[in-house]
Amino acid sequence: MTPLAATDVVDAAARIAGVVHRTPIQRSRLLDERCGAEVLLKCEHLQKVGAFKARGAANALALTDPAATHRGVACHSSGNHGQAVAWAARAAGVPAWVVMPEGSSAVKLTAVAGYGAEVIRCGPDLASRSEVLARVVDRTGATEIHPYDDPAVIAGAGTAALELIEEAPDLEMLLVPVGGGGLASGTTLAAGGRVVWGAEPAGADDAARALRARRLVDASPPNTIADGLRATLSERTFAMISAGVERIATVTDDEIRVAMRFMWERTKQLIEPSAAVPVAVGLRGDLAGRRVGIILTGGNVDLDALQW
Amino acid sequence: MTPLAATDVVDAAARIAGVVHRTPIQRSRLLDERCGAEVLLKCEHLQKVGAFKARGAANALALTDPAATHRGVACHSSGNHGQAVAWAARAAGVPAWVVMPEGSSAVKLTAVAGYGAEVIRCGPDLASRSEVLARVVDRTGATEIHPYDDPAVIAGAGTAALELIEEAPDLEMLLVPVGGGGLASGTTLAAGGRVVWGAEPAGADDAARALRARRLVDASPPNTIADGLRATLSERTFAMISAGVERIATVTDDEIRVAMRFMWERTKQLIEPSAAVPVAVGLRGDLAGRRVGIILTGGNVDLDALQW
Repeated sequence: MTPLAATDVVDAAARIAGVVHRTPIQRSRLLDERCGAEVLLKCEHLQKVGAFKARGAANALALTDPAATHRGVACHSSGNHGQAVAWAARAAGVPAWVVMPEGSSAVKLTAVAGYGAEVIRCGPDLASRSEVLARVVDRTGATEIHPYDDPAVIAGAGTAALELIEEAPDLEMLLVPVGGGGLASGTTLAAGGRVVWGAEPAGADDAARALRARRLVDASPPNTIADGLRATLSERTFAMISAGVERIATVTDDEIRVAMRFMWERTKQLIEPSAAVPVAVGLRGDLAGRRVGIILTGGNVDLDALQW
Repeated sequence: MTPLAATDVVDAAARIAGVVHRTPIQRSRLLDERCGAEVLLKCEHLQKVGAFKARGAANALALTDPAATHRGVACHSSGNHGQAVAWAARAAGVPAWVVMPEGSSAVKLTAVAGYGAEVIRCGPDLASRSEVLARVVDRTGATEIHPYDDPAVIAGAGTAALELIEEAPDLEMLLVPVGGGGLASGTTLAAGGRVVWGAEPAGADDAARALRARRLVDASPPNTIADGLRATLSERTFAMISAGVERIATVTDDEIRVAMRFMWERTKQLIEPSAAVPVAVGLRGDLAGRRVGIILTGGNVDLDALQW
């Protein structure tokens, strides 16, 4: 396998231009004050499907084997990736199947179905997800799109940082949340030598521990409100993060809640808990004196389940 | 008294430029679909203090008698106007007193005090507010800034529509929420002959009833979640609205809740109930076929009290 390079992100950007939004960059004077830093916010909560995941799904779909594209795409996901695959398939006019575990929120089930995908339920564990997805792929001939362990998805995710740097080339540093590590991996490709940090919930800190141990570690069962960051690194994302991410900062769920509420109340931007994770790192003071780009990864919140 | 004219809004815009934000205009494809209309959203929830009220307060403060300016400004308000006056005073380097009734939310008390104003508590009824404010003005020599029954506040409020029209001259229509009527009055001045509609909660519909009766009507006690729209028209705003507003549409609190939730979930913009009132008019279909500018008046929500 040829390793991914910066040109893959540039190619992905050209491929998905006009399909995904070029999202705005926002500033907040108060956030800068509280962080003691200059913080540029890349607004992927304003992206198609309300999350940066649209970028990877669109790029991966565009890169499926042309002979197979018409048979559609499939994935398992309880979150934003499922919506992204459903949306990208509709945009391309091909069918999609999304395997969603029991316990997925009604809002997300409805959203995926609303994009025209067929929702297939499975058990809550990863084994059940994989097994049900394998059957779907077998039956339909659909191409699986993995949420992060896929070069096309990683390159697509990197286009958010690419756009940010194009508009703010004097950024010194990029800070992104880490779940399965696809966004962090893509960001290292786009960073052009800038420092890249990851931000992770303390209750799902396998990446931080892996970076310290210099090997993949067993993930404890995740326990965090940042529902988009419960996945664990793959060999591929671990290798890319090891090579390109300087540090992974962890924050508690309380810090995440405070950061999310700060963003809602002060910037009026409805971001999801996962997107608040890097903001929490800033509010704690870890970015002092820097000029940093943060990717606000998504804005999909179940308002019925909201608890401060 | 010389009646206000469009030039007063143009003058106000020049006066407050650089003090208030020139807020962005947003679009939502889904909102357009649901409304069957082209809707341009003027984002005053991203304004200083999170509400268009910053415009009127800044203009009024700039127009106080120069001999009295240093003695500061005062108002009574349980809401955004109090924050706006406190903020404008701090920006001008003069003191401010804000009379706030019992029952004002802790969030709003903290915000007003946070801008450096002195908060003075009063009873919940209008008589107590007026009496306490009169004593403050007597004692301090501060200039009162009324939330809407003031030519400078009205002209300042009109600058939101002015900016919107400058960037989108092909708008056919403007739609704004109506409480005391200051924003609607200012908008008629800026509209340049375009149709202006107001939007009002059914539980605080004195303006709609006044327009039908062709005279000010007794307001029943307001009963609506749109806490920014509980005030009633003055002679001045009634006259201006009668002359320049074609229709005032009313919506129920349920319609307001649905519209607010739509905006939160779909546009990720945290707007307050009052700002959702014109959106509700659109979602009901009343704007079909039009190209309309809606002013999203504010984004100050008490998240602790949030109930869908």
